[in-house]
Amino acid sequence: MVFDIVIHNGLIITLNSDFDIIENGVVCITKGKLERIEAGANDKPLPEAKEIIDANGGIIMPGLVNTHTHLPMTLFRGLADDLPLSLWLDEFIFPCEAKYLTPETVRVGTLLACAEMLLSGTTTCCDGYFFEDDVASAVYKSGIRGVLGQGVIDFPAPGVPDPSDNIKNAVRFVEKWQNVSPLITPSIFCHSPYTCCQETLKKAKAASDSKGLLFQIHAAETKSEYVRIQSEQHTTPVKYLDRIGSLDENTLIVHGIWLDDDDIEIIAKRRSKVSHNPQSNMKLASGVAPVPSLITAGVTVGLGTDGCASNNDLDLFREMDTAAKLHKVNLMDPTVMDAVTVLKMATREGAKAIGLDNHIGSLEPGKQADVIILDTDKPHLVPMYEPVSHLIYTAQGSDVRDVMVAGRILVRNKNLLTLDLEDILERVTRLSGYIKKKLKVSKVI
Amino acid sequence: MVFDIVIHNGLIITLNSDFDIIENGVVCITKGKLERIEAGANDKPLPEAKEIIDANGGIIMPGLVNTHTHLPMTLFRGLADDLPLSLWLDEFIFPCEAKYLTPETVRVGTLLACAEMLLSGTTTCCDGYFFEDDVASAVYKSGIRGVLGQGVIDFPAPGVPDPSDNIKNAVRFVEKWQNVSPLITPSIFCHSPYTCCQETLKKAKAASDSKGLLFQIHAAETKSEYVRIQSEQHTTPVKYLDRIGSLDENTLIVHGIWLDDDDIEIIAKRRSKVSHNPQSNMKLASGVAPVPSLITAGVTVGLGTDGCASNNDLDLFREMDTAAKLHKVNLMDPTVMDAVTVLKMATREGAKAIGLDNHIGSLEPGKQADVIILDTDKPHLVPMYEPVSHLIYTAQGSDVRDVMVAGRILVRNKNLLTLDLEDILERVTRLSGYIKKKLKVSKVI
Repeated sequence: MVFDIVIHNGLIITLNSDFDIIENGVVCITKGKLERIEAGANDKPLPEAKEIIDANGGIIMPGLVNTHTHLPMTLFRGLADDLPLSLWLDEFIFPCEAKYLTPETVRVGTLLACAEMLLSGTTTCCDGYFFEDDVASAVYKSGIRGVLGQGVIDFPAPGVPDPSDNIKNAVRFVEKWQNVSPLITPSIFCHSPYTCCQETLKKAKAASDSKGLLFQIHAAETKSEYVRIQSEQHTTPVKYLDRIGSLDENTLIVHGIWLDDDDIEIIAKRRSKVSHNPQSNMKLASGVAPVPSLITAGVTVGLGTDGCASNNDLDLFREMDTAAKLHKVNLMDPTVMDAVTVLKMATREGAKAIGLDNHIGSLEPGKQADVIILDTDKPHLVPMYEPVSHLIYTAQGSDVRDVMVAGRILVRNKNLLTLDLEDILERVTRLSGYIKKKLKVSKVI
Repeated sequence: MVFDIVIHNGLIITLNSDFDIIENGVVCITKGKLERIEAGANDKPLPEAKEIIDANGGIIMPGLVNTHTHLPMTLFRGLADDLPLSLWLDEFIFPCEAKYLTPETVRVGTLLACAEMLLSGTTTCCDGYFFEDDVASAVYKSGIRGVLGQGVIDFPAPGVPDPSDNIKNAVRFVEKWQNVSPLITPSIFCHSPYTCCQETLKKAKAASDSKGLLFQIHAAETKSEYVRIQSEQHTTPVKYLDRIGSLDENTLIVHGIWLDDDDIEIIAKRRSKVSHNPQSNMKLASGVAPVPSLITAGVTVGLGTDGCASNNDLDLFREMDTAAKLHKVNLMDPTVMDAVTVLKMATREGAKAIGLDNHIGSLEPGKQADVIILDTDKPHLVPMYEPVSHLIYTAQGSDVRDVMVAGRILVRNKNLLTLDLEDILERVTRLSGYIKKKLKVSKVI
């Protein structure tokens, strides 16, 4: 048999259920799928293939899974940092979203995000935003895999001036994209229990269920949300969502910081999933999610970067490092959130959190060939006693050399093959120059 | 006048006392010193120079200052993570230090550290370890600037089998290195108030004072240290050190986590300095240093990575990102530790913390030409509304393109000019293979 691609001469971190690590590994790919993952033998020639990729002694692993993003927010990266949350949102983010988001700017902002993600080893993202049709077009163009949800919110939103259209609009997006490409999985992104009324939450979940979609929702993110739901619904955000039927195995709770023990039990019982976004939670001073307790309770927790305005990057390697360290100091226990646990969060558990675990998240025969190769011939990756430790505590997105999604090579030798990066950077720079000028004129900054 | 080097076509972040940022900046260097820092004029030719460096629209800034490292510990990077502190130290780090540290391994481990630091934009490090003579040889060879202290501890240590020789040995190191090179500043590194008896602490400080040196000491790092000093000395670590005369403007308190309000006041009053190492403190679950309170009290706080065994890298860009985010979530206030404050910690405040603020830490005429240039033509650095925000929240060590120390170019186009990187990586890999084999045989891992 002649494979499409054979990758060899690398250490394979499979992320399979036995957490097998294969030295001098060989990965065989055909028609976008993984066919064989095995140890190479020095006395045996390599399997035949149309293309042979030498990993040069580096690490071969599944691409990373970013379970929560707002891709077009790259446009507002670093626009206004270190501010109180309400000032940041009311004076900068909301006005900029209202004024500067158009189908065209959303597309170029998403292309920028895809470029950043691919170049730093992310092969799947789960997004929720507005103008999601344009997000999807850009994601599709880049070749990255995406679970994409049109936003539902009870306020006028970019592209949805009349909130009463919000669910209809989200369903229209789903119907348009549900059969376009195996790489695009539509979803519904309900903004939060405090920006959507009970009726909207119920209708959005019903629409999501009727089509078997992932239902994404920000919940239990901030103390003010917690206080507000307590005041209005006389219970916690999670118990409120549970009471109105929002929680089941297709629900992805994003953030999940303000949780009590009963909330954790409910999430576990409903088999809902959680997206953990530690860097955003730290930067916005939202709090520390009880991730070790969630995992102990059996909840599937994936890792996410959140949007670029609150992080300010989409690099999951930095996010893994932070996730591992934050919980140690928070619980004053250096043994929690060990490197293996965190690596799983960013791969197989993340895939499960967004409903794609049958297809991606590990290197196993039959799964999609979403593979990345890291160059480990760098001072910060030497010596290497324990490769998984290096992936969490010292590897960087910039160590990623090659990236493929469904067997299609998107990054080769650190060069992005699918997009015109120079053109994207130039267009975003032009737009940001305009935004900057306008903000200065209005004396906001 | 013909300068030695002129850098142009970049955004200069001067870090001078007015925090001037100069667009289209020009930096003129002669005899290792900064001569002029000014805005370029389009109608005027560039100043004449032996070498012209085009920053290509990137960022030109002072090199970063790492105020706390144990350079040779690169050799133990990732050797044993996610363990309880005592197990990590007693079963792995201490035995490995005892068995595998020799003058030769210390030299190669230090060369690896210098390579990593230079390639990620650090131009000055403050180190404390054993076999410091060999550390100094390697630092000198690399061309990086260093404040280097031979370790003083009341236990048999690598290279100092008899603790009664500890101070004599440290002084011998100082005398040997104090006039070798303007790039090497000797210091004394007293390990901690719980590993050195009162007599040792006093003698070491006296020796340090007699030569006008920086006196480095780990203090108030862990709860167990705090409890022990409380039990033995009936006061806090800082008050104990103050009582025995260890604290003055030449003292660098490393970590400074377990501090009460009085401790902070004492540190401020004595004008002692603090080295903040957030990633190490998180990974080892030591706690969160009250850095915003220290800064408010007027204490000079620099940033440090700590050794590679507890971080696991020497990248100050990652450390800045973490410092900015950790305190926000810890104090539940998104406005603390803003980007400018953190950038100062990693440059001018760091320089002040280790006694070099008259020479380095900012780009100002008369100071040493320790300069780095960042390539900002990358997806994660676009758009750029606020360059300082990007340096803290999204720039990576790998964005550093050129590095010079005292006007000598050490990194050009991401290539290290002073060291044979391939040889260093090979030697460290060989040594780590041996260590790994030995540890496996003894069934420790």
